[in-house]
Amino acid sequence: MSHTNSPIIRTPSCSRTTMTELVLPNHANVQGNILGGRVMHLIDLIGAMTAARHSRLQVVTATVDSLVFLHPVKVGDLILLEANLTRCFHTSMEVIVQVHSEALHTGERVQTSTSFLTFVALDSKGKPCSVPSIRPESKLEKERYVSALMRREYRLKSRLKCDL
Amino acid sequence: MSHTNSPIIRTPSCSRTTMTELVLPNHANVQGNILGGRVMHLIDLIGAMTAARHSRLQVVTATVDSLVFLHPVKVGDLILLEANLTRCFHTSMEVIVQVHSEALHTGERVQTSTSFLTFVALDSKGKPCSVPSIRPESKLEKERYVSALMRREYRLKSRLKCDL
Amino acid sequence: MSHTNSPIIRTPSCSRTTMTELVLPNHANVQGNILGGRVMHLIDLIGAMTAARHSRLQVVTATVDSLVFLHPVKVGDLILLEANLTRCFHTSMEVIVQVHSEALHTGERVQTSTSFLTFVALDSKGKPCSVPSIRPESKLEKERYVSALMRREYRLKSRLKCDL
Amino acid sequence: MSHTNSPIIRTPSCSRTTMTELVLPNHANVQGNILGGRVMHLIDLIGAMTAARHSRLQVVTATVDSLVFLHPVKVGDLILLEANLTRCFHTSMEVIVQVHSEALHTGERVQTSTSFLTFVALDSKGKPCSVPSIRPESKLEKERYVSALMRREYRLKSRLKCDL
Amino acid sequence: MSHTNSPIIRTPSCSRTTMTELVLPNHANVQGNILGGRVMHLIDLIGAMTAARHSRLQVVTATVDSLVFLHPVKVGDLILLEANLTRCFHTSMEVIVQVHSEALHTGERVQTSTSFLTFVALDSKGKPCSVPSIRPESKLEKERYVSALMRREYRLKSRLKCDL
Amino acid sequence: MSHTNSPIIRTPSCSRTTMTELVLPNHANVQGNILGGRVMHLIDLIGAMTAARHSRLQVVTATVDSLVFLHPVKVGDLILLEANLTRCFHTSMEVIVQVHSEALHTGERVQTSTSFLTFVALDSKGKPCSVPSIRPESKLEKERYVSALMRREYRLKSRLKCDL
Repeated sequence: MSHTNSPIIRTPSCSRTTMTELVLPNHANVQGNILGGRVMHLIDLIGAMTAARHSRLQVVTATVDSLVFLHPVKVGDLILLEANLTRCFHTSMEVIVQVHSEALHTGERVQTSTSFLTFVALDSKGKPCSVPSIRPESKLEKERYVSALMRREYRLKSRLKCDL
Repeated sequence: MSHTNSPIIRTPSCSRTTMTELVLPNHANVQGNILGGRVMHLIDLIGAMTAARHSRLQVVTATVDSLVFLHPVKVGDLILLEANLTRCFHTSMEVIVQVHSEALHTGERVQTSTSFLTFVALDSKGKPCSVPSIRPESKLEKERYVSALMRREYRLKSRLKCDL
Repeated sequence: MSHTNSPIIRTPSCSRTTMTELVLPNHANVQGNILGGRVMHLIDLIGAMTAARHSRLQVVTATVDSLVFLHPVKVGDLILLEANLTRCFHTSMEVIVQVHSEALHTGERVQTSTSFLTFVALDSKGKPCSVPSIRPESKLEKERYVSALMRREYRLKSRLKCDL
Repeated sequence: MSHTNSPIIRTPSCSRTTMTELVLPNHANVQGNILGGRVMHLIDLIGAMTAARHSRLQVVTATVDSLVFLHPVKVGDLILLEANLTRCFHTSMEVIVQVHSEALHTGERVQTSTSFLTFVALDSKGKPCSVPSIRPESKLEKERYVSALMRREYRLKSRLKCDL
Repeated sequence: MSHTNSPIIRTPSCSRTTMTELVLPNHANVQGNILGGRVMHLIDLIGAMTAARHSRLQVVTATVDSLVFLHPVKVGDLILLEANLTRCFHTSMEVIVQVHSEALHTGERVQTSTSFLTFVALDSKGKPCSVPSIRPESKLEKERYVSALMRREYRLKSRLKCDL
Repeated sequence: MSHTNSPIIRTPSCSRTTMTELVLPNHANVQGNILGGRVMHLIDLIGAMTAARHSRLQVVTATVDSLVFLHPVKVGDLILLEANLTRCFHTSMEVIVQVHSEALHTGERVQTSTSFLTFVALDSKGKPCSVPSIRPESKLEKERYVSALMRREYRLKSRLKCDL
């Protein structure tokens, strides 16, 4: 199917990915809060799955935008992640990952973090290769598609500064 | 809401849980197939989350019905799990967990396993305690609700045999 | 030895496998009980080792019969597993895995779970291949050998139903 | 020592932390590159250790600034991390984490990532509490101390935008 | 039984512990050999289980005698460990751990390592406390019981040297 | 550089490796002390990194000299490791690993363990191959270089005894 002449276009819903994780003592610190690094690991994994599903290629993480941990998450609570592809740029893809926690005893959900990541698709030799285009459908998807360009410019600008 | 006098009743959709996992070398055997035990571990985790979300209590696994691994899942593929609560029995809950794999390069999905598990809710002292009732809504949920009784009887019968 | 013309026959004691595990906080839930999924992971691993030792081939898990967790196992306790090959069916092997827990402070042992699993042997290209026969020796081994046939028929029958 | 009346002041070198990690198959993806999430996990851990050493208190991650993965890191290579505390803000601390990779066969080192994280110190009840001041010594430490204020303002501004 | 007035005496066979582990990619280095540190981790775990079973108390590792890795162990092979308590010294216990590997395709076993470890028993407050005596039965157990004294003297002597 | 005709000689400081680890519940036993086997795992890893950095080759652990755990390390404390190459012997290298713990709330450091390990360098076919020489510089490095010969003789002697 990927060998037809017409370019492949997929929608964000094709690669939308959700994940639910029970916070076990295994991933917590001494106070019984999930480690920030564990949340970051999950954000990276779900982002990579989303980019891999869109491109149907292996991917590597290129950038992670700043993220804030708004609320601590306790052992026994749940972490809910949802990742959506926002826009593609030749060989790279931007993904938004939203993290919520859900308290076991009340079922109450609060937003914990939101982050934008970019991933690069790799061919079978490990070289960057072009990815299918994306066609946003909903209003939110279209807004994210537009703002992705600004985030990309900001990233490139910051990176230049960082190199100087 | 959990403090009203009327009995708490929740629907299966309240506690429905989904999980997506990228198969990493970390969870594979020498041939690059996911370990059966890793899939079982995920089935148990998602089942426990579903039962905990329904009851808003800590839970422990009581039984796992027989399961079949219909297809091997390779490193780089995705595993998709969905868990639904089917019926409650005083202190225990039955959950159905459905597992699919999704091939990275084609996006093709196949059913890998289906399993029924039961979990017991525990109070703060670790003793079994009663759980909210469930009200199935869809046709499928109602069918599962009815058949849960048969599976329960079968389990109790098998267990008797096993004790003799 | 595996190159002689006469068919290879091994006894259950050739591949019998035992495992002892200390329950660490690492594998426990919030109440300090071992996760059901951890026990299932160990059951799968010891079963796979037994089938691999009998066949001297790589194996994959095909089915796991229903299992019951009769007693919770606490952090600090020990888990004892023993796996025995019961019967071979051309390319597949049935293994019985028995799980006991041992309380640290009393040394008291109780049976936790028993499960039957089947594994398929794979050749170097990952295709199912035939396995050595088994010759049960003790009375118990002979009983398990006979009953393995009934469990197999039951599994095939259940699987048909599940496909319909 | 922490009970004297004069305020405690520590230098960045008191809490400077270094870490070296061998990239094992365990932390790599299918192509044999370290997972981005693993690097993020290490960045969070070393940052937390630095903040904990400065404050001599338990800490939780509050924010992680954007980070770029400039080069892939292969299985068998080494990852080198260094973390320095830049500035304290009543109950929070900013840490800069620099990541390099070192190729096994050449010893060549390249910069992989740089990130700024903030951590909040917690008292024994898990509430934010004030931390010792920092006195930068070297030219670089003084520059980082000054620029920390700008990064903080930028973070607060972004967060406001994000809330609106 | 632990509440009688006569001192408790157990035999080595009471606490003998065996362990079998499949070497997964998860525990191997780039060449596909098990990590030395993984073997050491298993040696420590099985030794601790043996000492805990003899004393029916929590234990901590005090010393590990020198150990040699005679043969590399490959992914897909099995590791077999057996631990026997050799002698008790008031609050400490010496355990011998023997490690063999078993090649998957031939079933051939070779000795990989042997090590002597000592563990200290702890009471509920974490303080060292006295342990039951041991009564060696077989010729080998008696030899190990006698030689344990020499190893202990050697350890104490080495430690003195190391302190100077 | 590695292709010149003159033999390669490196100093201990070229391959010196340091590691800092936060003790998480994940690596602790029921009392909240780090597992001895976890410390041994870290000692092996840092020793292997040091030998790999000196030789720029893959390495495997050959021997670990006796080690003593002088002090328990609690969850929340830090472990600091430093590894230095002491001497090379054709295809093998001796490394000294020193372990300290640092209490979170006081910053107090105590020596926990010291161990000598030897590693063998492997070529791309997995066969032992010769390693660069080492030129000790400081007084301590020169002392370690001399005493390495005695430790080696002692190891060879012990191993002969062990074979008889």
